[in-house]
Amino acid sequence: MYDRIESAGLKGRDFLSTQDWSVDELETLFSLAAQLKADRKAGLPTRILEDKTLYMIFFDSSTRTRNSFETGITQLGGHGIYLSPDRMQISHGENARDTANVLSRYGEAIAIRHCAFGEGNAYLSEVAAHASVPVLSMQCDVYHPCQILADYLTIREKFGDTSGLKLGVAWTSAPNYVRPISVPQSLILMMPRFGIDVTLAYPPEFKLLPEIEAQARLNAEQSGARFEITNRFEDAFEDADVVIPKSWGPLVHTRDHDEGIRLIEAYPSWRCDAAHMALGRDHMIYMHPLPADRGREVTDEVIDGPQSAVYDEAENRLHVQKALMALTM
Amino acid sequence: MYDRIESAGLKGRDFLSTQDWSVDELETLFSLAAQLKADRKAGLPTRILEDKTLYMIFFDSSTRTRNSFETGITQLGGHGIYLSPDRMQISHGENARDTANVLSRYGEAIAIRHCAFGEGNAYLSEVAAHASVPVLSMQCDVYHPCQILADYLTIREKFGDTSGLKLGVAWTSAPNYVRPISVPQSLILMMPRFGIDVTLAYPPEFKLLPEIEAQARLNAEQSGARFEITNRFEDAFEDADVVIPKSWGPLVHTRDHDEGIRLIEAYPSWRCDAAHMALGRDHMIYMHPLPADRGREVTDEVIDGPQSAVYDEAENRLHVQKALMALTM
Amino acid sequence: MYDRIESAGLKGRDFLSTQDWSVDELETLFSLAAQLKADRKAGLPTRILEDKTLYMIFFDSSTRTRNSFETGITQLGGHGIYLSPDRMQISHGENARDTANVLSRYGEAIAIRHCAFGEGNAYLSEVAAHASVPVLSMQCDVYHPCQILADYLTIREKFGDTSGLKLGVAWTSAPNYVRPISVPQSLILMMPRFGIDVTLAYPPEFKLLPEIEAQARLNAEQSGARFEITNRFEDAFEDADVVIPKSWGPLVHTRDHDEGIRLIEAYPSWRCDAAHMALGRDHMIYMHPLPADRGREVTDEVIDGPQSAVYDEAENRLHVQKALMALTM
Repeated sequence: MYDRIESAGLKGRDFLSTQDWSVDELETLFSLAAQLKADRKAGLPTRILEDKTLYMIFFDSSTRTRNSFETGITQLGGHGIYLSPDRMQISHGENARDTANVLSRYGEAIAIRHCAFGEGNAYLSEVAAHASVPVLSMQCDVYHPCQILADYLTIREKFGDTSGLKLGVAWTSAPNYVRPISVPQSLILMMPRFGIDVTLAYPPEFKLLPEIEAQARLNAEQSGARFEITNRFEDAFEDADVVIPKSWGPLVHTRDHDEGIRLIEAYPSWRCDAAHMALGRDHMIYMHPLPADRGREVTDEVIDGPQSAVYDEAENRLHVQKALMALTM
Repeated sequence: MYDRIESAGLKGRDFLSTQDWSVDELETLFSLAAQLKADRKAGLPTRILEDKTLYMIFFDSSTRTRNSFETGITQLGGHGIYLSPDRMQISHGENARDTANVLSRYGEAIAIRHCAFGEGNAYLSEVAAHASVPVLSMQCDVYHPCQILADYLTIREKFGDTSGLKLGVAWTSAPNYVRPISVPQSLILMMPRFGIDVTLAYPPEFKLLPEIEAQARLNAEQSGARFEITNRFEDAFEDADVVIPKSWGPLVHTRDHDEGIRLIEAYPSWRCDAAHMALGRDHMIYMHPLPADRGREVTDEVIDGPQSAVYDEAENRLHVQKALMALTM
Repeated sequence: MYDRIESAGLKGRDFLSTQDWSVDELETLFSLAAQLKADRKAGLPTRILEDKTLYMIFFDSSTRTRNSFETGITQLGGHGIYLSPDRMQISHGENARDTANVLSRYGEAIAIRHCAFGEGNAYLSEVAAHASVPVLSMQCDVYHPCQILADYLTIREKFGDTSGLKLGVAWTSAPNYVRPISVPQSLILMMPRFGIDVTLAYPPEFKLLPEIEAQARLNAEQSGARFEITNRFEDAFEDADVVIPKSWGPLVHTRDHDEGIRLIEAYPSWRCDAAHMALGRDHMIYMHPLPADRGREVTDEVIDGPQSAVYDEAENRLHVQKALMALTM
């Protein structure tokens, strides 16, 4: 039943960004995810990784990521170990090389979340350079590839063929802390490769990393999809099939936290409500990686309404990550 | 061997209080618990919940509850995930609705401990309202139903037929912090339903929630058991078969912490010693949910003595919770 | 395949120090460890402890110990529960007796790390006195027996017969905190019992517990091995087959933290570099339990060089501990 896993040739592959994987390789993953999802609904066992160990190192807190990975490896017959750097020797100065080498001798994969801007991706890359087992990103400062896999699987489930769909990715204003830019960056990188037209809307101070925006443009050109950036919130909604309004920090503009919060508070009208939803196509769905700041990013009416696909999207984290683990571990 | 589980019809049921379950349903649970206990002693496998996931959200610290649930799901072939709100997005303001919906998409049950007075039960109820998987109480501010299941199984093992037994539930004075009222409340609610006469003894400021005391009275009336409240410590011991002396806070009387501690310290003589034990029947057993404050709640002589059943009681947490999970998940 | 486990007669045995086990018993463990290691490389299942639970109580942080134990019990088909005293009732004053008794009723073994000087071993011993399941040391203030099992397995893999080999155990200067003395103490205790000549080198203020040094001398006399103590760093390297340069605190000399740090900083030249390595035999290997303070304890050139066996040594933690669990649980 899972006999294509071996022949997929992805055993041992790292997954730090979707950009490192070809469209064909990603298609293999989505196809396996769909099969694992169907088998779970049917109550079939899926002990593909029996007694194998996944290390999950979290530099930042998590609900969906931790639980979907740990439940996923459980359903595959293996075991996930939740690790906090503050309870590891990392807090005693152990370097990435030693951590990578030692964990590679014990278990079968190392998953890491490390969102500190300017640090996370560098840490993941250094672990990957030294590990002999696959290193899987659970989100860094630059990428959140597993989230985008789940987003894409959700879109495909709702619409079938994704070619020519319009996805709006819109910045929203959310208080209290400066959120990472990894989600919008990963969205604009991968979605155009699957033929999806992407409109990215943000206030001027909220631009993404120039090299990521450039790569997204290139990806769109190569696939024939459209990719455009705008400073008008509504542009992300108009005639869209899918909209993902989500807050992030002005990290490319300023590293100063207070100035970041001030800029976020300068655009309170960047909030998704029913009027915005009415700008899209009738079948338009609303997605958000969660947790959403209800009232500030989106109204309850929208996120709890009939167009919201947030729980389907969250569920798909489980299925795509099970496919990712089954293929690489 | 476990073929009655399916036909019990409890799959998907929440367990926030014993009051929500009929005596027949509770009997089914006790009977399964006894069978699971016997099978464990015999070394038989009990993989009833293979590769299923139990989420255990702890707002408060734990030894017995966490380890008995996590060991229990392991012995059933499944996996428990220990979750702390401070490491989840709950600390970023995620609401109960989102947590409930998302975890329902991944695993098979959500167990929660949340003892903050005036908050815990409300939180559990809200999660239960939105979850599509069973929500199991690991103690809230109002109820600690799993503890009482274990207590009852222990009493039945010691005495056989429980009808007409006398149980004394006595307040004790224990320093440093204000303990929840969930244990005595759950005791007085459930024990009379199984024909056990209950004497509840506390100083005047330590009364329980009026609606719980009223429900306990009603339960006793319906079953024909006696239920009485007294302000004299010794009343709980005299002619009793079972005594559970246990500290709790004057939460119904005052929410002020310092005033609570002052009131607790006003009754230092409410401590169980050998003289009190001599007031009961010769076969009287001493129980306590642990941790006990040795020296303040009880003398070492009693808790480590021949009448103490505290470790049998603690062990039964494992067996009743395995039955609970097997029936509901 | 694993039919000798039952007949080894070690079921239920505690493991707080290698000194409590005979050489024959330790040989049984090493032989099983080698077999488990070979079976893992061959991809064979080793479900010797199916659905059994190991409690891992960590009073101190850990990378290798936690992950090797938890991965090990996973590969044996069981489950490890990671416990922090600050999240258990231990933080509410629960005593060792109650913790030992309760966990003994639920699972199959209790592993503990507790390195606080003057407290750790006493705590482990008290738990062991009350537990009816085996208590396994994951390092205390006096012993780190699992580390030394891994060290010995590594030496045997590299050299075959270990009789007559020279091992240098050298103190090194490492900043910031006062490291335990359990590793050198466990090394000098066990290695002579397997015929290994040990040279222990430290500055005068860094002597080990007198009773441990005396026992090491006795062990050496009984086996015919040499054991010598010197205050010259180079003595540990000259003509050695194996060298383990590792920092520890002057705990026997002073309990004052600042004075300890001052003494550590008084010997900055006690650092292993290529020149020291050249003093040993050509085939000499470098080992360290990790985490090493790179630059202060050892140069990168040495620890990342061809003579370094640190990752093999770390890996062997997994295999010896799997053997330990399989034999005792």
